[in-house]
Amino acid sequence: VKNHIGIVGGGQLGRMMAQEAQAMGFVVTVLDPTPNSPAGQVAFKQIVADYKDEAAIRELATFNDFMTFEIELANAEILRELAAGGVQINPSPDTLTIIKDKLTQKRFLSKYGIPVSDFQEVSNRADILRAGVEYGYPIMLKARFDAYDGRGNAAIKSAEEIDAAMEKLAGRQLYIEKWVPYVMELSVVAARSLDGEVATYPVVETIHQNNICHIVKAPAAISAESRQKAEQLAADVLLRLDGAGVFGIEMFLTAGGEVLVNEIAPRVHNSGHHTIEANETSQFGQHIRAITGLPLGSTRMVAPAAVMINILGDRQGLAEVSGLEEALAIPGVSVHVYGKLETKPERKMGHITALGDTLEEALEKAEKARHLIRI
Amino acid sequence: VKNHIGIVGGGQLGRMMAQEAQAMGFVVTVLDPTPNSPAGQVAFKQIVADYKDEAAIRELATFNDFMTFEIELANAEILRELAAGGVQINPSPDTLTIIKDKLTQKRFLSKYGIPVSDFQEVSNRADILRAGVEYGYPIMLKARFDAYDGRGNAAIKSAEEIDAAMEKLAGRQLYIEKWVPYVMELSVVAARSLDGEVATYPVVETIHQNNICHIVKAPAAISAESRQKAEQLAADVLLRLDGAGVFGIEMFLTAGGEVLVNEIAPRVHNSGHHTIEANETSQFGQHIRAITGLPLGSTRMVAPAAVMINILGDRQGLAEVSGLEEALAIPGVSVHVYGKLETKPERKMGHITALGDTLEEALEKAEKARHLIRI
Repeated sequence: VKNHIGIVGGGQLGRMMAQEAQAMGFVVTVLDPTPNSPAGQVAFKQIVADYKDEAAIRELATFNDFMTFEIELANAEILRELAAGGVQINPSPDTLTIIKDKLTQKRFLSKYGIPVSDFQEVSNRADILRAGVEYGYPIMLKARFDAYDGRGNAAIKSAEEIDAAMEKLAGRQLYIEKWVPYVMELSVVAARSLDGEVATYPVVETIHQNNICHIVKAPAAISAESRQKAEQLAADVLLRLDGAGVFGIEMFLTAGGEVLVNEIAPRVHNSGHHTIEANETSQFGQHIRAITGLPLGSTRMVAPAAVMINILGDRQGLAEVSGLEEALAIPGVSVHVYGKLETKPERKMGHITALGDTLEEALEKAEKARHLIRI
Repeated sequence: VKNHIGIVGGGQLGRMMAQEAQAMGFVVTVLDPTPNSPAGQVAFKQIVADYKDEAAIRELATFNDFMTFEIELANAEILRELAAGGVQINPSPDTLTIIKDKLTQKRFLSKYGIPVSDFQEVSNRADILRAGVEYGYPIMLKARFDAYDGRGNAAIKSAEEIDAAMEKLAGRQLYIEKWVPYVMELSVVAARSLDGEVATYPVVETIHQNNICHIVKAPAAISAESRQKAEQLAADVLLRLDGAGVFGIEMFLTAGGEVLVNEIAPRVHNSGHHTIEANETSQFGQHIRAITGLPLGSTRMVAPAAVMINILGDRQGLAEVSGLEEALAIPGVSVHVYGKLETKPERKMGHITALGDTLEEALEKAEKARHLIRI
C-alpha cells in the first residue's frame, strides 16, 4: 500500500503538513539538518541531514511513495533526477526550477499572458540606470535566486540610490521590476492535483512587516470583480504549471482595480495558515491530497471571516511560551506553536488564527491575542 | 516552562489528543504496550509498557508536567498515589475510580439527583429474579467493571433467559438496570477546566451497532427543550465530578421527552470525533486545554450539520486503506485513519466526518464515503 510520504525540510510548514498527512493515515518522514526539528517532533521519523545532501535525499526516496518539500532551497537537480527515475515528487522539480529563479518565473508568467509588472534582466549599473529611465522611479532591484521574505529586494527611489542597492545585492544575479503603486497586497492559495484539477481558496489580504507576511485577512475586503479576477489569475497560473501541490500566488491590487501577479511560492504558504481553522480543507491537507493523487477538498470557508497573525520571536534565547492562557480565553482564537527550541528576533515561532463574524471582529481578537502571547 | 504532557494509552484517542496538543506547542509522550502505537507514531516519544505497569507510569510522571489517560483500564491506584504526591493528573484518579465501577457511577449520579434508570446490585439468580419482578422485563444484566463497547451487558427478556445471561457474564460482579424504552440515544461531550469552568458541546444523536457507537449525528434532531435538558444534565454531572478533562455523557431520550443519563466515559469520546471539523474547538484540543489549566474553547459548530461514521475492520490481516480517493472526492468529507498496523473485524480503524447544510445531506455524504472506504 502506498502510504509513505517524505518531506524535504522540517520547519513549521513540514510540521503542519505532517500533522494533516498523519491524520489521513500516511506515514511521514522528514529530512532536516536540525535534530528534533519542528516537523521531526511530530512526524513518524526524521532523517537528520542538510536539505541539499544528495545521499540523504536519495535515502528518503528509497522508502517513500511520495516526496515533497517545504522549502525552495531543496536540491532541485537531484530531485529532477529522481523524478526522471520514477520517484513521485511534487511539485515537480521542473516547476521548482522555473519558480526558484524569479526572472525565469516572471518570463514564464509573461509568456502565458498572466499580468505582471514590467521587468528586465540587468547585469550592471548602466542597465539599471536605463531601466530607471524607461520605467520611471521608484524601481525594484531584485535578486533572481534565494530571495524569500524580502531578503533579496532593494527599492531604488532615484538614480542616486543605485549604488547602495547594488551593494546590498552584491554578487547576486539581478533583475529590475517596475514599481507597482498597489493599494492592497493579495494572495491566493491554490492547489493542483495530479490529474490537473485546480482548486483556489478565497483571496486574502496580506499585510507585510519587514517584508514578512505578517497579517492575513480572509476573505480580502475587495469587490466581487477583483476577487474573481484574483482567483481566476491563480487558477490560470496553476493550469500552466506542471506537477501537483499547493502554491501561494502573491498579487498586487492597484487603485484602478488591476490585479498583477507578484510572485509564486511553490509550496504551502503563510497566507494560508488560517485555512486550518477557517476552511473545510486546510492548505496542508490539500497539499497532501494533491501530491498523493487524491482528489482536492472543498476550499469553502466555515466562518464568515478569519485573521491570521504571525508570532515572531523578539529576543535571542530558549523558546518559552507565555500568555497562552490569556490568549486562549478569547473565543474563536487558536494558537499554533511550532516547537522551535530557540527563539530569535523575527523568527517565525508560531501563529494565531481568530475566527469572527466580521473581519473587524476577527482582527480585534487576533491582535488582542497577539499582544498577550510571547514565545 | 510547563509544556510536557504524558498520556497513558496510545490508541486513536491518544493519537488525536497528541496531534492537538502538539499543534499548541506541547511535547507529548505516550505509554502503550504496542510499539509504534497509533499515538506513538505521531507523538514526540512513546514508552513501550503495559497500561498498568507501575514502574513505567512512575517514569512517565517524572518528566511530564501534566498527565492524562485515554483508557479506563489505566492503573487508578498508582495514578491516585502520584496525584497525592503532587503530579497533575486529570481526570482525577478519584473520578476514574467512581466511573470505572458502573454501579458506583449509578449511585453517584443518583445521589446528586441526576435522572438514571432504576438499578440494583445483584449477587445471584434470586436477586435477578426479584429485580425482574420488580421492574418488569426486559431488564439489563450488567458487569460493574471493564465493560465498554457493550462487552459486559446482557439483555434478559424473561425469567427463562436469566441463566444464559449469567453464563455470559460469569465470574463478574453484576448489577441490574431497568430497561429504558428510549426513542433515541443521545450523547453530550462536555469539558471541565481546572478552575471548574464547564463547557458542553451541542447534544448529538448516537446510533449503535453491536453495542459500538457507530454513527453520530450533530446536532441531534430533537426539540429545543430536550436539547437544553440534555446539555444541562451533562453540565450538572461535570459540576459534581472532581478534576478536569473531557467527558462523554451518554443518555436516553424517551417518547415522553424524558432524558436519562446512561453512562459516563471519563475521556474524549467517539461521539465527539466530528468536533475536529465541525466545531471551533475539537474535543481533543478542549481536553488538552482542560488538563493543562488553559481556558476552555468555544464549542460552537462551524457547519449547520455533521455526521461521523466509524470505519471498523471487516477482516483479519495487515491494514491497508482502499477507496480513499473516491471517498475524498465527496465535498465536505474528511477521513481519519488511525495508523493501526493490523485490522480485524469490529476494530476501530478510522472514522469519517461529513459536513453538510442539513443532517440529511451530511448523512448521505458520510454513508457514501463509508461504503467506499476499507481499511
